[in-house]
Amino acid sequence: MKTIVQKFGGSSVANAQRVFNVARIVTEAYNQGNNVVVVVSAQGDTTDDLIEKAKEINPNPSKREMDVLLATGEQMSMSLLAMAIEKLGCPVVSLTGWQAGVRTDTNHGASHIKTLKAERIQNELAKKNIVIVAGFQGINRYDDVTTLGRGGSDTSAVAIAASLHADLCQIFTDVDGVYTADPRLVPGARKLDEITYDEMLELASLGAQVLHNRSVEMAKKFHVDLEVLSSLEDKPGTKVKEVTKMEKMLIKGVAKDDNVARISVMNVPDVPGIAYRIFSMLAAKRINVDIILQSVGRDQTKDISFTVEKDQKDRAIQLLEEAKDTIQAKSIVCNDNICKVSIVGSGMQSNPGVASRMFGALFESNINIHMISTSEIKISVLIDLEDGKRAVTAIHDAFFDEFNA
Amino acid sequence: MKTIVQKFGGSSVANAQRVFNVARIVTEAYNQGNNVVVVVSAQGDTTDDLIEKAKEINPNPSKREMDVLLATGEQMSMSLLAMAIEKLGCPVVSLTGWQAGVRTDTNHGASHIKTLKAERIQNELAKKNIVIVAGFQGINRYDDVTTLGRGGSDTSAVAIAASLHADLCQIFTDVDGVYTADPRLVPGARKLDEITYDEMLELASLGAQVLHNRSVEMAKKFHVDLEVLSSLEDKPGTKVKEVTKMEKMLIKGVAKDDNVARISVMNVPDVPGIAYRIFSMLAAKRINVDIILQSVGRDQTKDISFTVEKDQKDRAIQLLEEAKDTIQAKSIVCNDNICKVSIVGSGMQSNPGVASRMFGALFESNINIHMISTSEIKISVLIDLEDGKRAVTAIHDAFFDEFNA
Repeated sequence: MKTIVQKFGGSSVANAQRVFNVARIVTEAYNQGNNVVVVVSAQGDTTDDLIEKAKEINPNPSKREMDVLLATGEQMSMSLLAMAIEKLGCPVVSLTGWQAGVRTDTNHGASHIKTLKAERIQNELAKKNIVIVAGFQGINRYDDVTTLGRGGSDTSAVAIAASLHADLCQIFTDVDGVYTADPRLVPGARKLDEITYDEMLELASLGAQVLHNRSVEMAKKFHVDLEVLSSLEDKPGTKVKEVTKMEKMLIKGVAKDDNVARISVMNVPDVPGIAYRIFSMLAAKRINVDIILQSVGRDQTKDISFTVEKDQKDRAIQLLEEAKDTIQAKSIVCNDNICKVSIVGSGMQSNPGVASRMFGALFESNINIHMISTSEIKISVLIDLEDGKRAVTAIHDAFFDEFNA
Repeated sequence: MKTIVQKFGGSSVANAQRVFNVARIVTEAYNQGNNVVVVVSAQGDTTDDLIEKAKEINPNPSKREMDVLLATGEQMSMSLLAMAIEKLGCPVVSLTGWQAGVRTDTNHGASHIKTLKAERIQNELAKKNIVIVAGFQGINRYDDVTTLGRGGSDTSAVAIAASLHADLCQIFTDVDGVYTADPRLVPGARKLDEITYDEMLELASLGAQVLHNRSVEMAKKFHVDLEVLSSLEDKPGTKVKEVTKMEKMLIKGVAKDDNVARISVMNVPDVPGIAYRIFSMLAAKRINVDIILQSVGRDQTKDISFTVEKDQKDRAIQLLEEAKDTIQAKSIVCNDNICKVSIVGSGMQSNPGVASRMFGALFESNINIHMISTSEIKISVLIDLEDGKRAVTAIHDAFFDEFNA
């Protein structure tokens, strides 16, 4: 007998018809003789509606009370899904985060799971119940309700799968797997059968938006086999797991991220400690920095450039302007009319042909590169925002056309 | 320093404006130096909307899952009220039933509170927080969410007041107190300053619909001083408490209940055990019987009549028809085109003038009485449904006009 954790997002349970669709997927897995635990998000726009309701009363409510309010969204959808499963004739029980033993830190609104005592879940499975758990929520050491932040239901699902040593954690979504590029941008994009955790991590952080990053990190850490698949079509999705064999295809995908701004700190002295000062200052204010590039020193000065998410741009600039004298910068320059396009694949660093093929594709499309960053499994370039879609198509064609041939 | 429990029903928090109205009442009590615990119901029609949502998926969901769903209503309203109180600048914390220590039996949908460990509430009060508690809900010994049934928020409030040995439990509603009759029926109806628990119990069970009966019973048992008052007008309400002095006014009120059907079991043998068989059979099927009347035996047979709520009528008749041969009844007759009109007041039994004055008022209005039932503090009559309003007015005038004079 296998234990399977199935996670369904908000759009998968948006209305009564979809709730029944999910109930059918769940009961099918159960009737095949599996232990089934289901993690469910709030229905459709429920979370946004609740936030709206709160803002009407208090534009700046405490995070504690916001968590109390938002946690009702998953509690509603889990009970409705349980009722649909009852209708299909299977035994079922729904559990809130605290009932399921999800203990988090005290960081309301963006909590991390600290422990997950799955005793209640295991008892219910032993009683042959399908177990539905509210995603996205837990309680902290004061017994206060917390939420894991947006996308937290993926993390809930992986944490439960890890705790139960489940055989598989299926993440059902409105796409049918992980693609070599965004199918809306690149018509020829192809679905991957398999991808490694690290590749998935790079793709997720690069804007592929299929899986929440924290969930992939946790899956990697606890060796949870993931599968990303569609709740609307009955076909295999993409497996996310440890590398088990040499992959034939070197490049796993092309991703584009428009939510990026580049900030450059110009002409700082070419002495030790400048980069440390800049980035510790930003970290103290919780500004996440992605790509960092430092120019080669010239005339005893150097330029330090980095990217941040667009909505953190203004605070970062303000901080740097305030510290301008301390770090002896000549000026702070920002460009947010850009996007980041990346290719991801294991072992690409040992294959110099990959980078040149990517740059060649951009050159042939007459696309200018503003910044380049490479890691062991990815190559990212910053280009003009307006060139983004053309760049993804050109790169995708360069790498994947030959496989199609 | 006094400890006050304030309970607000669904209509008092139906929208953002009313939530703020409640927040002002609560913070005023807090700013006067009191410990304030607030018990809140779900907003307006939320509970009905949730039931609707459930029925769309499963017309017959398990009571356990229904409780999980319904409990979100109070969780939403308590967090929204907390946000409004934050906006008004007072420290506040909201607690669900389980966080507040409300432990119930396992009877989903209509649970009774078994214990209430108010430790968390007391800790929060000691921290100078206003404490908001979700009414209507608790958890049972399996840590499953339960609800107390309709009107259960009143009971939650009284239980918390009892547990905290609060000085006062204020039940805010959309009327400003307990009246001598329904003001919508009788324009001259007058508000009572005080009423005893027993009188309130009779009025509540007779359809006055101001306070939930279980809450008054609990208040009586634990000597909790209650006050029924309006959330929309700032004026004193009606105090419900132990008898402390001889009341000047003998009759406390006139009540009408339309939700009543009379069933008569005709011509059963005038031998012992028949009534026992009939009512034990009904009790086994959880059919609540209100008034019971047995005719004087005649020709070795007698008639047994009783009243039930209208929606239990069909089941009761079905049961009796099935048992007709066993109890040797000639026929089962039902009349649901009736209503019950009652007068309530302590010590009326020792004053024979009360009953005759009531019957006289009905006679003068040409209203026929189908059945009469009396207890120590009430007299009820069954009359035709269409006569109900006229009867209440006539009786009210007979007893209260002289006091107005």
